[in-house]
Amino acid sequence: MTLVGGGGVILHIEKGRTGIAPIDDLLIDELPSPLTIGIFGPPGTGKTILCRQFLCEALRNGQTGVYIALDDFPEGVRELIARSGFELEAFERKGRFFILDCYSSQVGRRSSEKYFEDPRNLSNLSIAVSGVLQQGKPGAVMVILDSLTTLIQKCGVTESLGFLHILIAKIRSQRAGCIIKFNSAAFNPAVAAAVQDIVDGVIETKAEETPVGVNYCLRILKMRGTRHLTTWNPYIIDPKLGLLKNWLRV
Amino acid sequence: MTLVGGGGVILHIEKGRTGIAPIDDLLIDELPSPLTIGIFGPPGTGKTILCRQFLCEALRNGQTGVYIALDDFPEGVRELIARSGFELEAFERKGRFFILDCYSSQVGRRSSEKYFEDPRNLSNLSIAVSGVLQQGKPGAVMVILDSLTTLIQKCGVTESLGFLHILIAKIRSQRAGCIIKFNSAAFNPAVAAAVQDIVDGVIETKAEETPVGVNYCLRILKMRGTRHLTTWNPYIIDPKLGLLKNWLRV
Amino acid sequence: MTLVGGGGVILHIEKGRTGIAPIDDLLIDELPSPLTIGIFGPPGTGKTILCRQFLCEALRNGQTGVYIALDDFPEGVRELIARSGFELEAFERKGRFFILDCYSSQVGRRSSEKYFEDPRNLSNLSIAVSGVLQQGKPGAVMVILDSLTTLIQKCGVTESLGFLHILIAKIRSQRAGCIIKFNSAAFNPAVAAAVQDIVDGVIETKAEETPVGVNYCLRILKMRGTRHLTTWNPYIIDPKLGLLKNWLRV
Amino acid sequence: MTLVGGGGVILHIEKGRTGIAPIDDLLIDELPSPLTIGIFGPPGTGKTILCRQFLCEALRNGQTGVYIALDDFPEGVRELIARSGFELEAFERKGRFFILDCYSSQVGRRSSEKYFEDPRNLSNLSIAVSGVLQQGKPGAVMVILDSLTTLIQKCGVTESLGFLHILIAKIRSQRAGCIIKFNSAAFNPAVAAAVQDIVDGVIETKAEETPVGVNYCLRILKMRGTRHLTTWNPYIIDPKLGLLKNWLRV
Amino acid sequence: MTLVGGGGVILHIEKGRTGIAPIDDLLIDELPSPLTIGIFGPPGTGKTILCRQFLCEALRNGQTGVYIALDDFPEGVRELIARSGFELEAFERKGRFFILDCYSSQVGRRSSEKYFEDPRNLSNLSIAVSGVLQQGKPGAVMVILDSLTTLIQKCGVTESLGFLHILIAKIRSQRAGCIIKFNSAAFNPAVAAAVQDIVDGVIETKAEETPVGVNYCLRILKMRGTRHLTTWNPYIIDPKLGLLKNWLRV
Amino acid sequence: MTLVGGGGVILHIEKGRTGIAPIDDLLIDELPSPLTIGIFGPPGTGKTILCRQFLCEALRNGQTGVYIALDDFPEGVRELIARSGFELEAFERKGRFFILDCYSSQVGRRSSEKYFEDPRNLSNLSIAVSGVLQQGKPGAVMVILDSLTTLIQKCGVTESLGFLHILIAKIRSQRAGCIIKFNSAAFNPAVAAAVQDIVDGVIETKAEETPVGVNYCLRILKMRGTRHLTTWNPYIIDPKLGLLKNWLRV
Repeated sequence: MTLVGGGGVILHIEKGRTGIAPIDDLLIDELPSPLTIGIFGPPGTGKTILCRQFLCEALRNGQTGVYIALDDFPEGVRELIARSGFELEAFERKGRFFILDCYSSQVGRRSSEKYFEDPRNLSNLSIAVSGVLQQGKPGAVMVILDSLTTLIQKCGVTESLGFLHILIAKIRSQRAGCIIKFNSAAFNPAVAAAVQDIVDGVIETKAEETPVGVNYCLRILKMRGTRHLTTWNPYIIDPKLGLLKNWLRV
Repeated sequence: MTLVGGGGVILHIEKGRTGIAPIDDLLIDELPSPLTIGIFGPPGTGKTILCRQFLCEALRNGQTGVYIALDDFPEGVRELIARSGFELEAFERKGRFFILDCYSSQVGRRSSEKYFEDPRNLSNLSIAVSGVLQQGKPGAVMVILDSLTTLIQKCGVTESLGFLHILIAKIRSQRAGCIIKFNSAAFNPAVAAAVQDIVDGVIETKAEETPVGVNYCLRILKMRGTRHLTTWNPYIIDPKLGLLKNWLRV
Repeated sequence: MTLVGGGGVILHIEKGRTGIAPIDDLLIDELPSPLTIGIFGPPGTGKTILCRQFLCEALRNGQTGVYIALDDFPEGVRELIARSGFELEAFERKGRFFILDCYSSQVGRRSSEKYFEDPRNLSNLSIAVSGVLQQGKPGAVMVILDSLTTLIQKCGVTESLGFLHILIAKIRSQRAGCIIKFNSAAFNPAVAAAVQDIVDGVIETKAEETPVGVNYCLRILKMRGTRHLTTWNPYIIDPKLGLLKNWLRV
Repeated sequence: MTLVGGGGVILHIEKGRTGIAPIDDLLIDELPSPLTIGIFGPPGTGKTILCRQFLCEALRNGQTGVYIALDDFPEGVRELIARSGFELEAFERKGRFFILDCYSSQVGRRSSEKYFEDPRNLSNLSIAVSGVLQQGKPGAVMVILDSLTTLIQKCGVTESLGFLHILIAKIRSQRAGCIIKFNSAAFNPAVAAAVQDIVDGVIETKAEETPVGVNYCLRILKMRGTRHLTTWNPYIIDPKLGLLKNWLRV
Repeated sequence: MTLVGGGGVILHIEKGRTGIAPIDDLLIDELPSPLTIGIFGPPGTGKTILCRQFLCEALRNGQTGVYIALDDFPEGVRELIARSGFELEAFERKGRFFILDCYSSQVGRRSSEKYFEDPRNLSNLSIAVSGVLQQGKPGAVMVILDSLTTLIQKCGVTESLGFLHILIAKIRSQRAGCIIKFNSAAFNPAVAAAVQDIVDGVIETKAEETPVGVNYCLRILKMRGTRHLTTWNPYIIDPKLGLLKNWLRV
Repeated sequence: MTLVGGGGVILHIEKGRTGIAPIDDLLIDELPSPLTIGIFGPPGTGKTILCRQFLCEALRNGQTGVYIALDDFPEGVRELIARSGFELEAFERKGRFFILDCYSSQVGRRSSEKYFEDPRNLSNLSIAVSGVLQQGKPGAVMVILDSLTTLIQKCGVTESLGFLHILIAKIRSQRAGCIIKFNSAAFNPAVAAAVQDIVDGVIETKAEETPVGVNYCLRILKMRGTRHLTTWNPYIIDPKLGLLKNWLRV
C-alpha cells in the first residue's frame, strides 16, 4: 500500500497488526514487542471499548490477560467483554485471564476474585500487580489498567505518577504489554502530558462537534521505535463490534 | 423512522423509551436496564425539572422512587412534583416513594420524614442510602440525587467523588437506576469530566444566547451499551409540563 | 401584550408585578409568593439601587423590611433610601423596617441599632437573623442581604455558602422573600454558579462597552415555577429614580 | 454643554468640579461631598500623577491633606509634588499637610516625619490613621493611600481587604475624602473587583497599544449618587502638568 | 529632531543619553539622575546583554559598578563583559568595579571575590549590598541585579518583593542607579506588574515570530519624571556589540 | 552560504558543527566550547532521539559521555542507542561512557551499573553526579539529563530548580557540556521559562497539526555568545537515523 505522509514523503506501508483497524491504518512499521500504551481522551469517545479490543486481540494471540479493574465490579468487566461476543470463560478456566479486583473493596464487598486489592494502598497494589504478573510468561502478558483516572482521584497526582513509574518498570522487567486508560479531560492538561512522557506509546481520541452530531477521531502521538502516520483517523463506536473505520470519512 | 447520523451512516431507529421526548429522540437502541445517568449543565437549564420527569416516569412504570434531597425541604420537593400535576400521595401511601431528607438537618430542624441524614457525614449518609435502597425490589428502584453539586460544596471534591464511587457501586449491586444532578458551571471543568467518567450515561444541557433570548439544547454524551445520536436537541422548559420538544427548531 | 419568545413561540403575556419595569417586562407568569432572588453583576451596574427598589416595593405592599447591612453604616443605608425620595421614618416607627447592622462592629463603633452583629461570627449572625425575621409575619417579610460579596470576603467561600444554605432554609421556613446582592466579578465564576444554584431566582446585570459609553442590560436567568423571557433588557441607572427602561433601546 | 450619552439620551451637563479636566469631562452631576475613590489601572498610566492632582486640588480648596506613603520616602513624595510646581511648604507649616511615613521603617531608617508607622502592623497602622485624620476638620480632609498595591503585597489580600473596610468606615465617620491607588495588573482581576465594590467611586485607566505608541484613556466605572458619562476619555501624561485632555482624540 | 508621538502630538526631541541607541531613540527628556530601571522580557531577548551595556556606559561615565551575580560564576560575568571588548581589569584595580558573588555559595565553592553572599539569606544579602554600595560615591554608583528571577525562585515571591522594596529604598538613600533583570515569562504576569510598580522605570523586550525568524523590539513602559515615546522599537542582538538599531525596520 | 536573516540582514554563514543537520542549519557562529543546552518540547517530538544524537556526536568527537537515566532501565538506554546502529560497547570498555542509573532504585531492583542513585535524594544525586563527572577530562565530557521532567515530578519544582542551579554550576566548573530534556507540556509555561533562563542554550521543538499529519519543527531560542538564525526549521523523525532535514519543507 502506498500513502503520502505528513511532509509529503511517499511511504510504502507494511502494516503492523494490532487487529484494530483505525489504529493499524496508521502504523508503518510493525509494533515492537511489548509496549506500554496510554489511551488518552475525553469521556464518551470509546476508550473502554478500545481497551477491550486490545485485551481480546492479546488473548486471541496466545497472551495472558490481566485486567486491573478500578471502575466496575468484575461482573461488569465480564459483561463488557461478553457484549462483544468474546467467549471469556475458556480463558479463565485455563488460567489465561485474571481480574485484579480493585473495585469491590470500595463498597466493603468481599471480592470473589482470586486477586483483589484496595487501590488506595498503593504499596499493596504494587505487590498485588507483581503477583498477578507472574501468572503469565515473560513477553506474553497484556495488562489493562482501567483506569488511571480513578487511581489518580483516589491517591492524588504525585503518588499516582510515582506508582505509574514503578508499574511500568515492573512491566518492562517482565517484558509485558500494558494498556492504560486515561480521561484527559478530568485533569489539568499538564497531567496528561506528564503521563504521555512516561509511557512508550500514546493514542489520543477526540470528539469533534459537527452539525449532524459528533465525529470521533484518533491518532498516534508517539510510538517508541516505530514509524507511524500522524493524521487523525475517523472512527465509529459500536457497543458490540468496537471501534470501526468510519468509511464515509476516510 | 430513518435518520442520517453523524458521519453520514443511515440508521433505522427503534426508539428506547424514557418518556422524555427530547431525550428519546436521540436514542437508537433501547436503554439497557438500570443505568446511572448524570445530568450536567449550567444553572437555569431545567435540570431539576428533568430529574422530576425521570422520577415520575419511573413511578408510572412500577418502580419505587427514592429522592435524596440536599437542596430543599421535603415539602419543597413535593411541591415541585405537584406542580407537574403528578399525584404523589398514593405512591407514598403504598411505600413506593421515599424522600431521604438531607436538608432539614442543616437548619437544625427535626425532619418529619422516615429517612433523614446530615449530608456532611458521608459514612452515615452511605448507610442511610443502603437502608432506603432496600425498600424497593432489585431492578425496580430509581434514585434521584438532588444534587451532587451541594454534596461537593459541603464535603469537598475528593471526598464526594469517593462517596459517589461507593454510591454507584451500591446502586449497581441493587441493579437500581440513578439520576444525578450536577451544576457543571460551579466547578472546574475537570470535576465534571471526572464525574462523567464514573457514571454510565451523560446528558448535557446548555443555554445558547440568541438575540431573541436563550435557546436550550441537550445531548447524550455517552450511554453505556447503547447506540445513540450525538446531536444537540433543542427543547423548551415548561414549569408544569417539563422539558418539551422545541418544534420550531427541529 | 403579545411577544415572540426565544425559539419563536408566540406568547400572550400577563405581567407579574415587581414594580420594577426592566424586570416586569420579562415576566410571563406572576411571581409565586416568596422567593429568594440573587442579583448578580459586576461593580457599577446598579445592583445596590435595584436592592433598594425591591425593598421599597415590598414596604409599599405592606411587608416588613429587614436590611442586613454589611457594606455601610445604618445612616448610609438610610441615605441611600432617602435619595430615592422614599419616606422611611414612618415605617421604622411602626416596626415595619429594621436594619441588622453588621458594619459598625467592624470599626469597633457601638451600633445604635436594635439589631447588630459581627459578621465574622456566622453562628451568631445566623441567630441574629432568626431574631429579626420573627419581627414580621410569615409570608410578609422581605430580607435584603447587602452583600454576600462582603460576607464571603470576611468568612471564606465554603463557610459563606454553608451560611447561605442555612439562611435560605430559615427564610423558606418563614415563607419570607429575600434579595441577595452579589458582585460576580469579585470571585471565580464557579462561585457565582454555585450561588445561582442555591437561590430560587437569578437576575443578572451586565455593562456592555459601546463607543458612546456603557450600555446596561439585565436578564432573568432562572425563576422557580415561573415562565419568563430570557432576553437581555436594556436599562438606565438613575441615582434617584432607580433602574429605568432604556426606551431608546427597547 | 449638551452631549449625547450612552443609549442616546440627550443630557444637559452641569459640571461638577474635580479640577482635573479628563475627569470633569465625564461628570454630569456635581460630586457629592466626601467620597472614597479608587484609581485602578496598569503600571505606567499616570496613577501616581493623578493622585497628586487630587491632593493639590483639595489643598487649594482649603482641605487638609494626608498622604499615606508606602511606596517612597517622604522626600520622594515631596519631590513628586514639587515637580508640578505646587508650593507645599506653606501648607506643611500651617498644619494643612501631613505625610504618614510607612516607607522608612522598611529600611530600618528612622523617620523624620511626625507620623510614621510600619505598614505590616495593620492594627497600629489603623490607629495611626485615626490619629492623623483628627488633624483636619470633619468634611475637610483628603487622604491619599499610595498604594493599596503595596499594602496587599506586604499583608496579603484578605488582611488588606479587612483593613480597607475599616479604613473606609473611619473615613466615612470623619466625612473625609480618600483616593486609593491600585495597580490592577498586579493581582487576579477578582481582587480589583472586590476593591471596586468597597469604594464609592471607581476611575479606571488603561493604555491601548497603537502603531504610533500608547494611547491613554480613563473612564468612570461608578460614582455613588452621581450621574456621569461612561465613555473612555483619552488623555496625555505630562510629568509636570499632570493628566491633560488629549485634544487630538476628543 | 522632530517626531510625531502617540496621539499625534508634534514633539521636538532633545535626547537624553543612555548610550544605548534603541533606548535613546525613545527618550524625549534627559533621564533624571539615578533611577531604578527594570528590564522585563522573555528568555532569549538579550536582557543580559542590555544589562552589560548599562554597566559599561556607567563605568565609562565615571561611575562605580556593582554586579550582584546570582546566575553565573564571577568568571562568567567577566567573560560576558570581555566578549564586548570592554577592558574591565583597570576598573577592578582602581576599585571602580565589584562583583557581589551570590553564585559560588550555591555549589559550596569558596568565592574568590571580596564580596560574596548566599542569596537564600535575604537579611545577610541586604547587609552585603549595603556594604558594597558604600564603595562608591553617592550619586555615582550603578548596581546590576542579575537576576531578580533567580532571587524569586530561591526565596519566593513575597520574600523577594519585600527584599526588593528594601533594596530600592537603600539605593534611593545612596542616590545610586540600578538595573534589574527580570524574566517576565517565568512567573504569573501579576508578579511582573507588581515589580513594575516598585521600580522607577520599565523597559520591556519582546520577540515577535515572523516567517523569516524572530523580530526583537523594546519599549519604555514608564520612566519617572521623564517624557518618552511609547512605541515598540525594533533591534538586533549582537553577542559582541550589544543591542543595536534594526535599521531595516525603523 | 548566504541567507537572509530575520529583519532582512544578509548574512554570510560559517557553520558551527553539532553534526545534527536541522540544528546546524540555524547556527551562524561556531558553538563556543561547552554549553548547557535545554531541549524543550511536547511529548512525541523526538526529544529523546535528539539527546541520543548529541551523545553519539560527542562520543565520536572524543568526549566522555555520562547518561543520567531517570526514565528507563540502563538496558533501555542501551537499546535506544543501539537502535541507531551506534556501537556503544567499545566506549563502555574504555571508560568513555557511563550510565548513572537513577531508575532501578525506583522498583527496588539492584542496579548492575557502577554508578546509581535514588533520584529522590537530591543531595546524594548531586554527589553522585560529581563523582561520575570526574571520570572525564575537563572540557571533554557530555552529560545527558534524561529527564528533568521526571526529576521535577519526583522532587517538586522548587527543589528541582535548586538542584539544576547546582548541577549547572558543577558542569561549568568542569567545563563540561550538558543536554537537558524537558517536556514543556507537563508543567505551567512559567516552569519552562524559568529553566530556559538557567541554561546557556535553548532548542525548542513543536508539532504542528496539518491535514496530512503532524509537521515537526525546531528552533534555537537562545545560544550564549553565538549568532544564530531564529526561524523554525522543519524536520522528520526516524527512529534509527534520528532527526533529519525535512527537505520537502525547506
